[in-house]
Amino acid sequence: MDTEKMGLAAKAAERILGVADTNTKNKALEAMAAALEANADKIISANEADLANGRTNGMKDSLLDRLRLTPERIAGMADGIRQVAALADPIGEIIEGSVRPNGIKIQRVRVPLGVVGIIFEARPNVTSDAAALCLKSGNACILRGGKEAIHSNMAIAGVLRQAAESAGLPADCIQLVSDTSRESANQMMRMSKYLDVLIPRGGAGLIRAVVDNSTVPVIETGVGNCHVFVDSTADIEMAANIIYNAKTSRPSVCNAIETILVHKDIAEKALPVIRERLDEKNVELRGCERTHAILGDSVIPATDEDYATEFLDYILACRVVDSLDDAIDHIAKYSTGHSECIVTSDYFSAEKFTSSVDSAAVYVNCSTRFTDGGEFGLGAEIGISTQKLHARGPMGIRQLTSSKFIIQGDGQIR
Amino acid sequence: MDTEKMGLAAKAAERILGVADTNTKNKALEAMAAALEANADKIISANEADLANGRTNGMKDSLLDRLRLTPERIAGMADGIRQVAALADPIGEIIEGSVRPNGIKIQRVRVPLGVVGIIFEARPNVTSDAAALCLKSGNACILRGGKEAIHSNMAIAGVLRQAAESAGLPADCIQLVSDTSRESANQMMRMSKYLDVLIPRGGAGLIRAVVDNSTVPVIETGVGNCHVFVDSTADIEMAANIIYNAKTSRPSVCNAIETILVHKDIAEKALPVIRERLDEKNVELRGCERTHAILGDSVIPATDEDYATEFLDYILACRVVDSLDDAIDHIAKYSTGHSECIVTSDYFSAEKFTSSVDSAAVYVNCSTRFTDGGEFGLGAEIGISTQKLHARGPMGIRQLTSSKFIIQGDGQIR
Repeated sequence: MDTEKMGLAAKAAERILGVADTNTKNKALEAMAAALEANADKIISANEADLANGRTNGMKDSLLDRLRLTPERIAGMADGIRQVAALADPIGEIIEGSVRPNGIKIQRVRVPLGVVGIIFEARPNVTSDAAALCLKSGNACILRGGKEAIHSNMAIAGVLRQAAESAGLPADCIQLVSDTSRESANQMMRMSKYLDVLIPRGGAGLIRAVVDNSTVPVIETGVGNCHVFVDSTADIEMAANIIYNAKTSRPSVCNAIETILVHKDIAEKALPVIRERLDEKNVELRGCERTHAILGDSVIPATDEDYATEFLDYILACRVVDSLDDAIDHIAKYSTGHSECIVTSDYFSAEKFTSSVDSAAVYVNCSTRFTDGGEFGLGAEIGISTQKLHARGPMGIRQLTSSKFIIQGDGQIR
Repeated sequence: MDTEKMGLAAKAAERILGVADTNTKNKALEAMAAALEANADKIISANEADLANGRTNGMKDSLLDRLRLTPERIAGMADGIRQVAALADPIGEIIEGSVRPNGIKIQRVRVPLGVVGIIFEARPNVTSDAAALCLKSGNACILRGGKEAIHSNMAIAGVLRQAAESAGLPADCIQLVSDTSRESANQMMRMSKYLDVLIPRGGAGLIRAVVDNSTVPVIETGVGNCHVFVDSTADIEMAANIIYNAKTSRPSVCNAIETILVHKDIAEKALPVIRERLDEKNVELRGCERTHAILGDSVIPATDEDYATEFLDYILACRVVDSLDDAIDHIAKYSTGHSECIVTSDYFSAEKFTSSVDSAAVYVNCSTRFTDGGEFGLGAEIGISTQKLHARGPMGIRQLTSSKFIIQGDGQIR
């Protein structure tokens, strides 16, 4: 991977893209969407090469399915790009402004971050999603996908680059790293001269590696050890319903819950109801001794590690706690800071939970599954940040921006 | 340095400080200011130990002067803390909010970052400034100053901790690392489990080391290779005045300029005027061939390295450029992204310069020396960010915050 060459090309492209007007960017996005559809056959045959490699390497059926592109899925990608085109352009927004006592006028205006690096795994649709979100927010991007999807990613990126160029923007607004070795990921982590931010999208291992090794500023995304706390005053049906939804509607995603905490005063009544709902999907419960005492031998004893684990599966840890404070302490200890929920009827409990729980999204009486750019009304999302610097929670195109100060005077000195 | 112990103590303190109300925080700040004044003798005698060490180690007079604490300087530090107390509390601000179609109510509220690490050099007043800014914004801090000021810093931190505690906040809101070895700085850079952000304050070497080695998210501050471009339509007196101010009013600071770029059409008239002003302070000019042709042999030939150097001294690089575009290209190549200025009478030049120059602060017709939290109306500043992630330009207490989403429902599931 020639990081110097890609970095310089991205910087040069960014200087044009960063000041391009919204019409030009939208025209490019429309061209990109149309080009994906027009080149569907080409993309699908590249994808077939990836699928064939996957089968040779014994890839699981579920992963093969995630990797597979069909005309419908390509139409879906094109549709995603059109949705990004329809979003309001964040660039140029005057965020604040004032006139200082000496007469200088200060504006803070929204500008692109510059060059965004994204390291991702598996699904080839990330290539078009990420490219579209970066382009709309005025950022050049350097994308590095996994080796499993390299033929698909190359085909998609090639089509998108050509389309962007046809609309008058530099092709290098979108660059894909063709080298999928571990070394190329490490090289990206050292591109602090060229990358303004690096966003890892994938499993906990990838994210940890990037956070630990990158000298480029990182936005940590997506690891979610999420909790529901059932307070003593909870509506038990509501609690069971929220827990069922948050655990089983899509267990493999980061906003699914992994542990429930149940107030001791309601545990005896609530746990059997919750249990019954979870049995519909054969959810395995790993509980503390008090959970076991109430629900019996079907509960597997929970270890400390269970409470720290993002199962991403039909497995749920459970602990009976003495108080709201104990629930908050448990969350402070084990949570990854993604999404937590309290089910309660009590005003003060709700207030205390929302102010004391230090996570990106804190819920009262609704499912943690709502932590999502689309559900929050941000449009498409580039990821869900679990760090506190720069962006926290679902990141839309606005979170792919920075700002600068513009100061106008007529000769003022200090 | 026991990072585990300090980290846990900071986290525990932050959970209390982060939800403390404004009255409590202000009471603590008032107590801290009063305690500095009441303990001035103690602090000054600790400072004398540092001064004695400095003299033994052959420290320069100018550095000894920066290190020295007097009753007046301590009163100044106390006054600084009182000014922070007077700032509006950013915590709890509702930044935005909406009701989604399914009835869930989403608010984004401002919260502290959590635990802020600061590695700084030299001046002991940073200890009280940083502690006050962090406390007001609800952040616990771990401060590591230089070995030159360790006795002073320990005395100051001890006084501040006690005062915070007397006002009902945990002493561990403010922790100072007593170990000033290089190893302790390296350990802080690896405290990603406990630190939410690490801010280096000091020279370019320190900042580079932190950016390259930290696994904690970093905010890069303060390196300023700043430019003034004198456009062909500039008011020459204004240009000379701004250049004189931006170079000589305080050459050692990051918002001082290091290079001037002069449009070829005005160079012959402007350069002698600029030169005359700069001669008042014996500023050394390092210029290109065209500068030399106009100003003669007193101009030292500028190397490529000169254009990349933050002199922080009475030295100024100069280049005659063919056009506004060439000036923008020069800045894109050499600038550290801090502050740049155009002196012009032309509307389109001003617009193009402000939109195309990618720096934290872009000026039209006034001095770059205004890049400062106080001058921008943010109150005291923790530093000037030259990166694009999270904060850019002068950072006040608001830039020491993050946000979280609070979502209220009545049983909604997805």
